[in-house]
Amino acid sequence: MSPVAVETPATGDLKSQQLKPNIGVYTNPQHDLWITAAEPTADSVKAGTDLKPGEVTVAIRSTGICGLVSSSDKSRSDVHFWHAGCIGPMIVEGDHILGHESAGDVIAVHPSVTSLKVGDRVAIEPNIICNECEPCLTGRYNGCEKVEFLSTPPVPGLLRRYVNHPATWCYKIGDMSYEDGAMLEPLSVALAGLERAGLKLGDPVLICGAGPIGLITLLCCAAAGAAPIVITDIAESRLEFAKSICPRVITHKVERESAEDSAKRIVQSFGGVEPALVMECTGVESSIATAIWTVKFGGKVFIIGVGKNEINIPFMRASVREVDIQLQYRYSNTWPKAIRLVESGVIDLKKLVTHRFPLEDALKAFETSADPKSGAIKVQIQSLD
Amino acid sequence: MSPVAVETPATGDLKSQQLKPNIGVYTNPQHDLWITAAEPTADSVKAGTDLKPGEVTVAIRSTGICGLVSSSDKSRSDVHFWHAGCIGPMIVEGDHILGHESAGDVIAVHPSVTSLKVGDRVAIEPNIICNECEPCLTGRYNGCEKVEFLSTPPVPGLLRRYVNHPATWCYKIGDMSYEDGAMLEPLSVALAGLERAGLKLGDPVLICGAGPIGLITLLCCAAAGAAPIVITDIAESRLEFAKSICPRVITHKVERESAEDSAKRIVQSFGGVEPALVMECTGVESSIATAIWTVKFGGKVFIIGVGKNEINIPFMRASVREVDIQLQYRYSNTWPKAIRLVESGVIDLKKLVTHRFPLEDALKAFETSADPKSGAIKVQIQSLD
Amino acid sequence: MSPVAVETPATGDLKSQQLKPNIGVYTNPQHDLWITAAEPTADSVKAGTDLKPGEVTVAIRSTGICGLVSSSDKSRSDVHFWHAGCIGPMIVEGDHILGHESAGDVIAVHPSVTSLKVGDRVAIEPNIICNECEPCLTGRYNGCEKVEFLSTPPVPGLLRRYVNHPATWCYKIGDMSYEDGAMLEPLSVALAGLERAGLKLGDPVLICGAGPIGLITLLCCAAAGAAPIVITDIAESRLEFAKSICPRVITHKVERESAEDSAKRIVQSFGGVEPALVMECTGVESSIATAIWTVKFGGKVFIIGVGKNEINIPFMRASVREVDIQLQYRYSNTWPKAIRLVESGVIDLKKLVTHRFPLEDALKAFETSADPKSGAIKVQIQSLD
Amino acid sequence: MSPVAVETPATGDLKSQQLKPNIGVYTNPQHDLWITAAEPTADSVKAGTDLKPGEVTVAIRSTGICGLVSSSDKSRSDVHFWHAGCIGPMIVEGDHILGHESAGDVIAVHPSVTSLKVGDRVAIEPNIICNECEPCLTGRYNGCEKVEFLSTPPVPGLLRRYVNHPATWCYKIGDMSYEDGAMLEPLSVALAGLERAGLKLGDPVLICGAGPIGLITLLCCAAAGAAPIVITDIAESRLEFAKSICPRVITHKVERESAEDSAKRIVQSFGGVEPALVMECTGVESSIATAIWTVKFGGKVFIIGVGKNEINIPFMRASVREVDIQLQYRYSNTWPKAIRLVESGVIDLKKLVTHRFPLEDALKAFETSADPKSGAIKVQIQSLD
Repeated sequence: MSPVAVETPATGDLKSQQLKPNIGVYTNPQHDLWITAAEPTADSVKAGTDLKPGEVTVAIRSTGICGLVSSSDKSRSDVHFWHAGCIGPMIVEGDHILGHESAGDVIAVHPSVTSLKVGDRVAIEPNIICNECEPCLTGRYNGCEKVEFLSTPPVPGLLRRYVNHPATWCYKIGDMSYEDGAMLEPLSVALAGLERAGLKLGDPVLICGAGPIGLITLLCCAAAGAAPIVITDIAESRLEFAKSICPRVITHKVERESAEDSAKRIVQSFGGVEPALVMECTGVESSIATAIWTVKFGGKVFIIGVGKNEINIPFMRASVREVDIQLQYRYSNTWPKAIRLVESGVIDLKKLVTHRFPLEDALKAFETSADPKSGAIKVQIQSLD
Repeated sequence: MSPVAVETPATGDLKSQQLKPNIGVYTNPQHDLWITAAEPTADSVKAGTDLKPGEVTVAIRSTGICGLVSSSDKSRSDVHFWHAGCIGPMIVEGDHILGHESAGDVIAVHPSVTSLKVGDRVAIEPNIICNECEPCLTGRYNGCEKVEFLSTPPVPGLLRRYVNHPATWCYKIGDMSYEDGAMLEPLSVALAGLERAGLKLGDPVLICGAGPIGLITLLCCAAAGAAPIVITDIAESRLEFAKSICPRVITHKVERESAEDSAKRIVQSFGGVEPALVMECTGVESSIATAIWTVKFGGKVFIIGVGKNEINIPFMRASVREVDIQLQYRYSNTWPKAIRLVESGVIDLKKLVTHRFPLEDALKAFETSADPKSGAIKVQIQSLD
Repeated sequence: MSPVAVETPATGDLKSQQLKPNIGVYTNPQHDLWITAAEPTADSVKAGTDLKPGEVTVAIRSTGICGLVSSSDKSRSDVHFWHAGCIGPMIVEGDHILGHESAGDVIAVHPSVTSLKVGDRVAIEPNIICNECEPCLTGRYNGCEKVEFLSTPPVPGLLRRYVNHPATWCYKIGDMSYEDGAMLEPLSVALAGLERAGLKLGDPVLICGAGPIGLITLLCCAAAGAAPIVITDIAESRLEFAKSICPRVITHKVERESAEDSAKRIVQSFGGVEPALVMECTGVESSIATAIWTVKFGGKVFIIGVGKNEINIPFMRASVREVDIQLQYRYSNTWPKAIRLVESGVIDLKKLVTHRFPLEDALKAFETSADPKSGAIKVQIQSLD
Repeated sequence: MSPVAVETPATGDLKSQQLKPNIGVYTNPQHDLWITAAEPTADSVKAGTDLKPGEVTVAIRSTGICGLVSSSDKSRSDVHFWHAGCIGPMIVEGDHILGHESAGDVIAVHPSVTSLKVGDRVAIEPNIICNECEPCLTGRYNGCEKVEFLSTPPVPGLLRRYVNHPATWCYKIGDMSYEDGAMLEPLSVALAGLERAGLKLGDPVLICGAGPIGLITLLCCAAAGAAPIVITDIAESRLEFAKSICPRVITHKVERESAEDSAKRIVQSFGGVEPALVMECTGVESSIATAIWTVKFGGKVFIIGVGKNEINIPFMRASVREVDIQLQYRYSNTWPKAIRLVESGVIDLKKLVTHRFPLEDALKAFETSADPKSGAIKVQIQSLD
């Protein structure tokens, strides 16, 4: 574990380089986790034989793990595929490479590509879309009917040394660190939420859950001028972490009580104001119920968290208060915005990366990420030459 | 029961008229239903002694009953207050006058009123708002924190001969029939729904439930150019009624099956297209679940119906499909729009009024409205001189 | 000129057919207009040698002319390219094929295509997009930075017997007539306008200009439940035509007067109501000024028409009334919606096609379309075997 | 001129106090500016004889001047009424009291008022609305047809020692300074703009004009997470001031060149990105043209500035780029939001108040405000006991 990120200069002439063998981090239906050889091979990268039109080869430098800080936090998919073998209908059926939060260097470019060149530092948007279905054509390609989402079975993920990926889904990050570049993926989840949630400057906002997505959502709400902001969690330590990254947030500890009582206490935390918007980042039934009881007449409960297949909601409360309920699935069109926010310093993701491991120690990284006692928020796996 | 509406000419000089004694239709916590004397008295109307600044006296001519055609249809409040004594937190605690769907003639005007004069035919919006809270000042006064909604306890309703009401909430209806004028209230419920639902020309729309609100919503969706439109119900007779008032609607009978299976069959009724919008007019749990399973990625389930305090929803389906769920409470700013639509002939409400009774037979009217075997859609109570 | 459309059965086995030679309707910088041989040749169609992956060959059956009914109507591009040689920065620089409103039969299919088969009747969306720029990825591909729009120089248009086009941009029209299929393109212009204009059921709407786009916009506004609707024009005959296709429209003749005075008279035509929305379909400066003076506080002036590079607007009126001004360029994602509206009978475009000519008489068709005295609304060119 | 604000403790028992005589700052059609006695008199305040139901008496402590920093800046009305005698149709016809940006102490309360008590520190929203017209009922009361806007002739303004005003339009500001309280009015102008402009976190935004409204708009855009932000002006000094209050803003000096060329240079200042939104705060024709040439396809030009009755716009550019143009008139529902933003520290208005004068020196204050050489951004007039 390296306490600070060590950055590598962009690579020069690929042909003359010694490329290490490509390896990947795998899981399978038996919940094993191991490292072994992966495609594309170093030789094929050098020869450029596996590159398809429009593709580039990226040497992955940093990859975040979707971990288990909050039992119900959306950003759990890597650990969840390993431990549970599935997320809803998405099932691990063979040897499967994890990872979808990555940044790295372009080390090879198909001749058809004009937007990128060798040496470009890039963040990867881990999907490939069909460009033909209604969601694609209407700008909501997260609903693409034929999407290939990297690390969702059977599409292999990014926890490899080298990956071939369409140039369209590789975004130049200039001199941003690889760590920050890899964080653009979880940031995208929160940005996609805020975009549809319609948060406006000066809106009082409640954030439920101080796990990784809740914390990034907090940074986004603060950056968007929400005021006041209250964040809830069951763990005092996470609330303290929230306060450390956003001093003006008001923290509120969740207790065992009815949703209606919980709502009353939260409104007190707001100084008597009902929030216009709740960003629900846990997916837990009781938290969603509290959100619906808390939000103002005509307000919105936006649920980023995922959870059980079915949940119970306080329907009549939602009805007589005209509560809008919105839900989210992945993201679309967020990377350019995420890059602008990080480059301009409006959002600082650095404090969220609490642990770093070299790719060769990926198993230790996963154990840390899955261990609630580790205090890990975001664990990153690095592959710096 | 009169088969057709008989209209009366507007009144002339009030002073010289023989005003009948004022009476009202009451219920109480013991579920009695009776007719007896009501305020304001005919004498006070003649003398103008009870009129407050800004008020007019309206001689009510037609009033619709919020009935029990569908067990879960929102437009059931009159019958529900009688039978159940409450709707959620709104409880009948003493003798209580019913009715909130009315039109009539202005027969007296406070000197401060300039917008109306004696003889004007008007439809009544049955609420009085505070003009000071956030919902009022932001144009969503259905959320007014101090609203007086007529017929919601303890505010007496409109099933009277004479009512004093602020001129602001009395809308001129020109030569529209009183029947149509009284129908503007249930039309307002549907219009408020469509307004927020954001239906657009050419959207495929599913309507769940062919009770009074479902049928009016059908007329509105057709008038707004939804295409195609599918309507569901458990009763074949109501689907036939739907077809009779909107020949281009596709009817779909609800069967006992899972929400997921039901959704598949409904999409078949659409010819393979998933609806962009579902207008859910039943409030029944299984119907809402079906709606969520049916709507397209990024689509909206708009729930006009009310039901149990808590319901179970297919949460993960809603999440991975980014389904927006919206709910509704009453209406705001709908009467001018409703009047334009009826006057221009875009919406024709006449076929929905299936039964008519004189005020003196109000008890029979309520029994008819509450009797599923009566085939009643909308029962109106008339008080024509 | 054929008074009614004659439809042809879909073709059977291409190989055994006698394909006529391919011809096209051309113009050039010298404003000539002529018919001569065009790509792809009949032989290459039979051999399938020119078809690229994803493409089909369409035998064009009906094509509408973007004509000169209104001097400032947007739907003038075909005639305008012929007469003026350019539209803004889009300049005819060589021999150039016109036409972009077409429907026909699929007569050949590249093996990679699965969505269409020989014999399918299709309408053509006349553009090919890059799928990579921000407008494409956000669902507004009318702003695509690399769009190839058929008939905009240097991309050849659709006035040919046979055209190779990506299957993605060919929409099945079932048993809809070719005429209606070709009308889906101008319908798309109006639908794209209404979609962004946000017209809601019951909104009072003003339409400026009763040329082809104004008339189609009228049909759309009526289908969307606008009430009341007023349409303006300088020509009494066009107002009568408007009335004939939409009996409930209120017609208003434009006179020589100030925009402010004109606005007053229009509000009178509305019965004293100010419209919530103006659909401006002329692009003429005085008409736009009138629109801004007429619309209600907080209302919208949506300008479909195009005109001079610079125009004068009543800025302070727009400011103190918070008038939203929106403009339009082509369309995106309208064909599926347009097809649903025509198939369901919600919009009937048949009356707008006033003249029909065989492809061989295309020059006569253009002359008719360009001649104000012809009374032509929409002239179509047919190529039925 | 006092360099820092001196705050006074809230008043105790009114009856026992020595109230100074009430005075006001007047102008007239002859462009005079003077101080003389004003209503309500100190005696009537003590006796409570002039207070109407719902009203309170506020002792005004700080009032900002709408000054002449930018010749075309919207916040010029006080100086403009003095110098020009009118703003558009609003004409000074007699002796007229100026001022509409004020905060102070409640010193008397009508018995009907329950929301405020003597001693409350309040900011004043300077309007009284009718609560009956469509704009009022739909939440856009800035369009109220009968609004009384303080300081717009013939309604007297707030530059007095004591003012009677409805409690509804007096907002508690807790321990916020009177200066900040008075700044809530210009902040409201910018907030109302941003609210409708729909700025989203991470949007690149251009602000045209670094006058008072431009600078407050800058603070709002920064607080809302716009990135990057470019601000333009013709004066280097104002750009420096902008940089001093928002270090991350990119400044861009306006040169004499075509709007098209200017747009190209501005996009360079953005690092090659076209802004999604332009907040136009000058109202100058050339600046608006530049805004339209600069904004991205489908972007918005939001014009806060006011200017000439008619202006020329690059119509075809706006058309082929689908530029939305929105304009603004005053504000509605902004004070609660403004108070939350200032209280939470999200927006800091202190640096904008560059000059302070006691009420008795109001004439000097106006001269300073009107003098471009004074370097004044916001001049405040104080009346601290």
